[in-house]
Amino acid sequence: MIERRQTKTVRIGTVRAGSGHPVAVQSMTKVLTTDVAACVRQIKRLATAGCALVRVAVPTRADTQAFAKIVEKSPVPLVADIHFSPQRAIEALEVGAAKIRLNPGNIKDPHDIRRIIDCAKRHGAAIRIGVNEASIRDLKHTDVRQDQRVSLMVSEMKTYVRFFEKAGFDQIVLSAKSADTMRTIDVNRAIAQSFDYPIHIGLTHAGLAEDARTPSAVAIGTLLAEGIGDTIRVSIAGDPVQEARLGFEILASLGLAPKRGPELVVCPTCGRCEVDVAGLARKVRKLLRTLDTPVRVAVMGCIVNGPGEAADADVAVCAAKGKGFLYRRGKRIAAVAEADLLETLSREITAGTSEA
Amino acid sequence: MIERRQTKTVRIGTVRAGSGHPVAVQSMTKVLTTDVAACVRQIKRLATAGCALVRVAVPTRADTQAFAKIVEKSPVPLVADIHFSPQRAIEALEVGAAKIRLNPGNIKDPHDIRRIIDCAKRHGAAIRIGVNEASIRDLKHTDVRQDQRVSLMVSEMKTYVRFFEKAGFDQIVLSAKSADTMRTIDVNRAIAQSFDYPIHIGLTHAGLAEDARTPSAVAIGTLLAEGIGDTIRVSIAGDPVQEARLGFEILASLGLAPKRGPELVVCPTCGRCEVDVAGLARKVRKLLRTLDTPVRVAVMGCIVNGPGEAADADVAVCAAKGKGFLYRRGKRIAAVAEADLLETLSREITAGTSEA
Repeated sequence: MIERRQTKTVRIGTVRAGSGHPVAVQSMTKVLTTDVAACVRQIKRLATAGCALVRVAVPTRADTQAFAKIVEKSPVPLVADIHFSPQRAIEALEVGAAKIRLNPGNIKDPHDIRRIIDCAKRHGAAIRIGVNEASIRDLKHTDVRQDQRVSLMVSEMKTYVRFFEKAGFDQIVLSAKSADTMRTIDVNRAIAQSFDYPIHIGLTHAGLAEDARTPSAVAIGTLLAEGIGDTIRVSIAGDPVQEARLGFEILASLGLAPKRGPELVVCPTCGRCEVDVAGLARKVRKLLRTLDTPVRVAVMGCIVNGPGEAADADVAVCAAKGKGFLYRRGKRIAAVAEADLLETLSREITAGTSEA
Repeated sequence: MIERRQTKTVRIGTVRAGSGHPVAVQSMTKVLTTDVAACVRQIKRLATAGCALVRVAVPTRADTQAFAKIVEKSPVPLVADIHFSPQRAIEALEVGAAKIRLNPGNIKDPHDIRRIIDCAKRHGAAIRIGVNEASIRDLKHTDVRQDQRVSLMVSEMKTYVRFFEKAGFDQIVLSAKSADTMRTIDVNRAIAQSFDYPIHIGLTHAGLAEDARTPSAVAIGTLLAEGIGDTIRVSIAGDPVQEARLGFEILASLGLAPKRGPELVVCPTCGRCEVDVAGLARKVRKLLRTLDTPVRVAVMGCIVNGPGEAADADVAVCAAKGKGFLYRRGKRIAAVAEADLLETLSREITAGTSEA
C-alpha cells in the first residue's frame, strides 16, 4: 500500500538500490577492521540477520589492506566508510568496495573528489553522498536556527549532487542525517522532492538500544510510510545485529519486508478482562519462538474484539472466565477449559504449521 | 516543526483535544472496574506517568456504579468504554464520564444513539466515535480486499459523523483502528482529510511490549509527523504504565512533548572505535537515572562525529584510545585519562545540572 518514490537504480555489487527494488537493510561493523576474522564473523552474523549491505570503516592504510581480505570473504557487498582521506577511498575502491560513503564536506580539494569519482567509475562502484547536521556546523554555521539547518543541509546536498553530475557520475545514493527525529524527517522529505536518486535513511548516534528504538522507528518509519527511503540503517550503540533486527521490524511493520517467523497479536486487555491474557500470551510467545513458519496467532481477552481479530489469524483464542474459545482461520472449532488452553492451542498451532 | 492539522476543539473534562492543544497521551485501566481501589491506584500511576486521560471499561451495571466512585477519586478526566449497551453509556455519563467511547456500529437502534447524544449534551461530555477493522467485518463485509477496508472504514465513519452532526452534536473525537500499521496510517490520513474533528490514534491489540513497540512507534509516529493526531494511545498487553511511557517517548521524539529528564546520545561506534563506548554509555546512563533534570549528554567514540555532536550537548565526551576529551556546551574543557573518565564526567554532569 506504500507508493515508493520513483528513483533511478543504483548498483551496489549484487544489490540494487532504488524504487524498483526492495528496501535494503544496512548495518556497520564495530570491531577493529584490522581484525579480519572478527570483522568477517560480524558481517556473516549481520547477513544472517537479513542485512543486504554492511559498512566497514577504513580510517588507515592498514584498514584498507584488511578490507581487501574482508571483501573476499564477505557474503554481502561491502560499503567502505571514508572520512577526510581521498587516498583511503581510492584504496577501498581498488580492493572491491561495492560502494563508498563519502561526506564530501570532509574532503577539501575538489580535485580529490574527482579522482575518487573516476576510480568509482572504473570499478563500477557506487558512492553514498553524506551530509549531516554536525558537518553543517563544521562549515561554520555555528549559530543557525534549528529550522535553518534543514535548508542548509539540502543546499549543501544540491552543491554536491551538481558536482557529481558534472563529473558524469549517477551511481549515487543520498543521505542526510541528524540526531533529531523531526529534522531527519524534514530534511529527507526535502531531498526526496529535489532529486531522483535513491536515499539512505538513518538517525545518527541515536543511543543505547532502549533509547534508540522509538526515535529510530518514528524517523525511519515515517519516511518509509511516505514512500521515501531505499536503504536504511538503524544506529544503536551495541551489537550491530540489534540494528539489523530493528531495521527489519520497521520494514515488516509497513509490509516492506516479509514478516519473519510467527506473529503474535495480543489484546491489551481492559477492565472487562477476567483472565490473565498477558500471562497466556507470554507462554504462547515462548512456544512460537521454537517455530519459524509465518503463522499468525491471536490471544484475545474478551468477546468484543476477539472474534473479529480471530478472523485474521491462523489460530486464535478468545479467553473468557474459566475457558477459552479456539478459532482456526476465523471458524470457532472448540471450547476448551482454561487449564487445557495452552496445550490445545499449542497442538493447534503445530498442526496448522505442519499443514501449511 | 510539525504543522498540526487544524481541528475544532473538544472539551474532555479539564482536557482540551484538538490542534490548539498539546497531544494528549491516553491509556486504559486493566484491573476489574468493580475493584475501585485497584482501579484508582492504576489511574494515579498512569497520571504520574503523564497520561492526560484514562479510559475505563464499564460492561455491567456494577461497573458503572464502581465508575461513579472512581470518577470522584481520579486526578484526570475519565473516558468510559462502551460496547453494545446504550444503558451503560447513559449511566456512565450521568456519573461523570468526561467522554465515552462508542462504536456506533455496535448499537443497533439509532434512537439509542440519539438518547446517548442528548445525555452527553446535558452533561457537557464528549463522545469518541470508534470504527475498527474488526467491526467492518462484523458488518458482513467478510471478504473485502485489504485495500477496500480503508475506504469501508472511512465511509462508515462518514455515516456516523453525519448522524452526530444532524443531532447537533460536535463534541466528537474520531478514531479508526486496525491491527495493521499501514492501514492505520492510511485510514487516518483519509479521515484527517474528510473531517476537522480531533482524531484519536492507536493500533489495536498490538501485542506484548517487545512486539508492540516498533509497529506502534511507526504508526503513531508517522501520523503525528504528518500533523495528524490529537490524543494517542499505545496498546500493549501488560502494565498500562508501559503504554503511557511509550506514548510519551513517541511524542518527545517528535518534539511534541518535552523530553523528560536527562537525554543520552551515544554514537553507534564502528571499526574506527578503540574504546568501549557502549560500556561507558551504560555507566553514564545508570548515573543519569538518578537525575531528573533535562540535561543532554553525549558519549562519542571518535573524532569524526564527536566534536560536532558535542556542540549540541550540555556535557559531552569524545573517547579516544586511553583518554577522553570533555566538552561543556561545545567547548573543550579538559583531556582526561580513560580511567578517570566516568568520574570526571559525572562531576561535570552534576555541576552542570545544579547550575541550571
